[in-house]
Amino acid sequence: MKELEDRIRRDGQVLSGGILKVDSFVNHQVDPALMDKCGQELARRFAALGATKVLTAEISGIAPALTTALHLGIPVVYARKTKPITMPDQVYLTLAPSHTKGRMVELIISPEYLGHTEKVLIIDDFLASGATILGLVRLAQAAGAQVVGIGALIEKTFEGGREALMPLGLPVESRTSIIGMNEHQITFGD
Amino acid sequence: MKELEDRIRRDGQVLSGGILKVDSFVNHQVDPALMDKCGQELARRFAALGATKVLTAEISGIAPALTTALHLGIPVVYARKTKPITMPDQVYLTLAPSHTKGRMVELIISPEYLGHTEKVLIIDDFLASGATILGLVRLAQAAGAQVVGIGALIEKTFEGGREALMPLGLPVESRTSIIGMNEHQITFGD
Repeated sequence: MKELEDRIRRDGQVLSGGILKVDSFVNHQVDPALMDKCGQELARRFAALGATKVLTAEISGIAPALTTALHLGIPVVYARKTKPITMPDQVYLTLAPSHTKGRMVELIISPEYLGHTEKVLIIDDFLASGATILGLVRLAQAAGAQVVGIGALIEKTFEGGREALMPLGLPVESRTSIIGMNEHQITFGD
Repeated sequence: MKELEDRIRRDGQVLSGGILKVDSFVNHQVDPALMDKCGQELARRFAALGATKVLTAEISGIAPALTTALHLGIPVVYARKTKPITMPDQVYLTLAPSHTKGRMVELIISPEYLGHTEKVLIIDDFLASGATILGLVRLAQAAGAQVVGIGALIEKTFEGGREALMPLGLPVESRTSIIGMNEHQITFGD
């Protein structure tokens, strides 16, 4: 997607440790019009799969997941990283490493909002190692739900996420692919 | 707003400790179409104020703030509760009590995305005691920005938030007002 790629070229910053900082339009400040366009396009790509729910992880997955769900006309559930007091005692919980926190985080979903009849579309901001998305897949599987597709805004192809997801045999779409980056340059794929 | 009120009547649950659980359409599972309508209406109410940025707090403020910002055509910034490694060392930070976590939480904004020329519209899911919103006001003031309005999806009028905000002399709008609730009944205002 040309618009997202242009925005990353203009406003993205490569930090040490292989972190791509997109805090000015995705992760701390959000550009709603850009998120809406990305969500519209992800919804179009996955429209034929008959998803009944979009699943993401708080916090930065919420914006693209919400706009995708809006265009698909279905609800979105975001996995929580701390269990709020409104959640029942019995939950689905898994652990996943957080790239930007440098430690394992919990991903928690209430069984109230993810049942065994659901067809789940997973949407996140990044597809890098695939670890967060695999955590969401495990939560969906724990609920007996069927994952039907996986979408991300930005894929870092050199971190192996697509290969990690391949055994699932699911469609995986990203809005833009970065095939290499350093502090001076970001190189995009097709 | 009739639709939000009907949804609270149907799916809201009053828990002990004065907590209104709206996890099935606002806080864990989100109804994007309802959030979009609420955002559209909040945008209409505040359109004349010339806001340049919407400000909210992660996590549950993100959905209504994003849809409001989308309809106003401006960016949204969400205050973080933990400082990510992508944030500079020097930040704006304040403390606010969290109703659902039962403790104080940090609210953190990077100076990169909130400058002294901004006109800030604060949007959150709840207006209860007003403590989170007052925290966001302090962050905007620390940045030298001007707060021009405050909006919420659900106001609990009996928790004093509107009175706490009154000294600011700002327009305060909520999409629906709850004037009383117990485990058997939720009573709405006009």
